[in-house]
Amino acid sequence: MTLILALDFGGTKLAAAIANVGSRQWLRCERRFSPRNANASSDLEMMRELIHFLLQSAKPAAIGVSFGGPVDATTGTVRLSHHVCGWENIRLKDLLEAEFGVFVSVDNDANVAALGEHRFGAGQGYESLFYITVSTGVGGGWILNGKPWRGVGGMAGEIGHMVVDPSGPMCLCGKRGCVERLASGVYMARDVREMLENEPQRRRERREGEILRDLVGGNLELVTGRVVSEAAGLGDELAEQILYRGAWGLGVGIGNVANLMNPQRFVLGGSVTKAGERWWEVVRKTARETALPEVDLEIVPAALGDDAPLWGAVALAQSTLISS
Amino acid sequence: MTLILALDFGGTKLAAAIANVGSRQWLRCERRFSPRNANASSDLEMMRELIHFLLQSAKPAAIGVSFGGPVDATTGTVRLSHHVCGWENIRLKDLLEAEFGVFVSVDNDANVAALGEHRFGAGQGYESLFYITVSTGVGGGWILNGKPWRGVGGMAGEIGHMVVDPSGPMCLCGKRGCVERLASGVYMARDVREMLENEPQRRRERREGEILRDLVGGNLELVTGRVVSEAAGLGDELAEQILYRGAWGLGVGIGNVANLMNPQRFVLGGSVTKAGERWWEVVRKTARETALPEVDLEIVPAALGDDAPLWGAVALAQSTLISS
Repeated sequence: MTLILALDFGGTKLAAAIANVGSRQWLRCERRFSPRNANASSDLEMMRELIHFLLQSAKPAAIGVSFGGPVDATTGTVRLSHHVCGWENIRLKDLLEAEFGVFVSVDNDANVAALGEHRFGAGQGYESLFYITVSTGVGGGWILNGKPWRGVGGMAGEIGHMVVDPSGPMCLCGKRGCVERLASGVYMARDVREMLENEPQRRRERREGEILRDLVGGNLELVTGRVVSEAAGLGDELAEQILYRGAWGLGVGIGNVANLMNPQRFVLGGSVTKAGERWWEVVRKTARETALPEVDLEIVPAALGDDAPLWGAVALAQSTLISS
Repeated sequence: MTLILALDFGGTKLAAAIANVGSRQWLRCERRFSPRNANASSDLEMMRELIHFLLQSAKPAAIGVSFGGPVDATTGTVRLSHHVCGWENIRLKDLLEAEFGVFVSVDNDANVAALGEHRFGAGQGYESLFYITVSTGVGGGWILNGKPWRGVGGMAGEIGHMVVDPSGPMCLCGKRGCVERLASGVYMARDVREMLENEPQRRRERREGEILRDLVGGNLELVTGRVVSEAAGLGDELAEQILYRGAWGLGVGIGNVANLMNPQRFVLGGSVTKAGERWWEVVRKTARETALPEVDLEIVPAALGDDAPLWGAVALAQSTLISS
């Protein structure tokens, strides 16, 4: 059997898996959380351990890598990580090829996850699709004519920083009201915290955010995107306000993308997409209203969940076997 | 020599031209204005006259057609025209093939103009580009991997109805603050007229719109997009306000598209792009601010002007000769 090694350098976790070519099941799969003070060297060292643990004495035919940050896919060089320091200009492809003596293919996580869903998940049989991950941040990856579309500098897919409300809140990117600023878990949690910290007395009198406060035992530091979703599901109006504002922003973004590129399918993954049926309703309704009536629009959940980047890495590696 | 016939059904005018394969000059080119009460039949009849006048007894090897409205390019069927009635579901390709006995290729004007600029104009040598026409309306056409990208239903390229300001003015499409609503000539003219008609006394006292009024001899019905540009160029503050708000909206749209698709080049054509250097500055500056710093961005004027759809039609027709 021909063995494929798939690696996923996420912002907060690392994963590695092996599978035989053509198989849809992992032979073995391992995950680790990356520590808070991780840097590129410690991440690489931890990944090496995972790899040797998985492979034992076996040798893969090719390696595919998903990296959580901008990558020059033609050279396999990491541009930077927004979460882990020390990754600037690391030639990850060269480094792994020197170490393992096989062909290595590297791309950013959204592109790789798009490829994973296209080949093995909710995008099978669709020649054009846009995959969007809505999690800590918001990112996207394209499949056009059955192949990844990366753009001239490898930067395509950045729906996260599409401005949908120029009078909205300020994002780290320097613009107001971009999709990520409204819809990502980190920003939703921050907005909820700030709203509860401002005018706490008035809000308490009106019992605003009460369910939210209960969920974190009164410690607002513990509010995350997941907590906001949960509180909204339980009927907390403040959490609903923030969660569905995010769904609205994402829906406007998707509708704009539909008008612009008219892909067959939108596939949505990431933790925020587990926020419940009403979140999906708001996304779908807003996207439908934003797209022109003549533009068909289909929005479906990702099928591979957290495994999408790993399966995409398998597809990346397999394509190098075919083309080499 | 092998003769190509190129046809352009614009909203307000018709054009036909003939050229030899490989040539970059028209053998003959004819244009007519379509009358106000035109319908599909009268447009077709007028186009027939143009064609017979051009061809005399010659026979083209293929015909390429640019149509000003949504088209199903795979079947060459017009969906509708926003300007001329009676075009719904007209099988333009079949109709012309039956009449002239040669292969006919039909696509909408923005896609065809994009192809024209790619093959013969400002997009030569660029494998990925987005062409935007800013005129009566705002439309766009894609070239990706050196070929037109039309989307699954042929609707790709609709930057005109991308929402950039959800609290902006209402568009006919039912949404607020889309690019076309802000940046197109027709809407800019309407906004200027309405501003001058409201509170005319107060505006006169402040001498607002004075240059604009002078340009149309006081008859606000004569205000067009071109008049707004001209007045802005002469320092009319009200005209400036509307013209540069449009440039801002278009710039946000272009920045969003750059983040999403990261094409090599943006090519801008249409009457509004002749509004002067400051209009271009606002478009470029806003697009640069909207795009992520890592996303390269180049925005250039179209090279073919009003001939872009005709030259694109030549390219369309030539490609059928090669593939047939």
